[in-house]
Amino acid sequence: VSRTQVRRLPEKAVSDVAALHAVLDAGMVGHAAVVEDGQPFVVPLAYARDGERLLLHGSTGSRLLRALAAGAPTCFTVTLLDGLILARTAFESSMRYRSAMVLGRCTVLAGADAQLGLQRLTERLTPGRWEHLRPPSRKELAATTIVALGLSEWSLKISDGFPDDLDDDLDWPVWAGVVPLSQEWGMPLSSPDMRGDFPPPNPAR
Amino acid sequence: VSRTQVRRLPEKAVSDVAALHAVLDAGMVGHAAVVEDGQPFVVPLAYARDGERLLLHGSTGSRLLRALAAGAPTCFTVTLLDGLILARTAFESSMRYRSAMVLGRCTVLAGADAQLGLQRLTERLTPGRWEHLRPPSRKELAATTIVALGLSEWSLKISDGFPDDLDDDLDWPVWAGVVPLSQEWGMPLSSPDMRGDFPPPNPAR
Repeated sequence: VSRTQVRRLPEKAVSDVAALHAVLDAGMVGHAAVVEDGQPFVVPLAYARDGERLLLHGSTGSRLLRALAAGAPTCFTVTLLDGLILARTAFESSMRYRSAMVLGRCTVLAGADAQLGLQRLTERLTPGRWEHLRPPSRKELAATTIVALGLSEWSLKISDGFPDDLDDDLDWPVWAGVVPLSQEWGMPLSSPDMRGDFPPPNPAR
Repeated sequence: VSRTQVRRLPEKAVSDVAALHAVLDAGMVGHAAVVEDGQPFVVPLAYARDGERLLLHGSTGSRLLRALAAGAPTCFTVTLLDGLILARTAFESSMRYRSAMVLGRCTVLAGADAQLGLQRLTERLTPGRWEHLRPPSRKELAATTIVALGLSEWSLKISDGFPDDLDDDLDWPVWAGVVPLSQEWGMPLSSPDMRGDFPPPNPAR
């Protein structure tokens, strides 16, 4: 049995790598774990997919990034919550979600690779923005750790259905169905220290 | 130094327990980690706060729930993504978020406590729905593991500001500010197997 075989609700497991990419490309934040003295720590991180790997970044001073850069075994999970599945019983009630779990060890990006990684991370959420930003300084690059996690060991679960109540429960006098949930962008809020008049970006997704 | 002391960006750390409760009560899914042979696994889980503890549940057959029920050290992190903070540099760009991390070991709820826990988990997202559902059967209760994680060791980080660019960068010709992000409920979708005409619920939050 592999470490990423889905044992619970295997009918929700998806093995198509294009579906994995689609979920990873739809998410904006994942949760990375590292272990210290047997204690797991789970920390949210922005990320971007770059082909068959994920790029993660953070401060060189961060405990998490230091552990990842040192090659500690990690798990990076991206979950998109798509709605509530409300059945006639608590037992059959659940959620619509898409969740990708990636296991492995990271490698550190250096030099031009690191700068390309930063660009990729910026362009993921705000396409076209990189060329308008003040380019990173040597000091800023030195203060940033960028690591890559290969998409070799992963699992994907997708729950996108309706309640699956027992036949005997279908006459129970209660509404059943799905309440969808989605993430929506709001109106951009300009910085109080803005100088000049520039158009706000249209975030991806 | 405690295990939950915020070392990175300590100005974003919040120590007020009411703020912790507010973040936990606003979230719907958290990410729990357990360790197996040195490898962390991060799994999304619905949860509900019950006073000074979190309730988690799942199948008795789930590896994660079995590990939690056995008292394995865990970390449960709830993250709400509130927007993008877009600065004049990639370095200062970040996100608005609220993230709570809870460390500890779970205890198992049994008997009437377990049933109350299930009720609490149901009522968290759909207040008033429990009394309309077909009550759980003995078999369903036996197939469900409910555990509690005390809110004793935790940290909370809140990022809710605007870009914090260097003075020298303020004239860079690019928009800077925040693009808010929020989760929105969609129109309820009735089950294809609905019988009768009942009103859909209004989810909490």
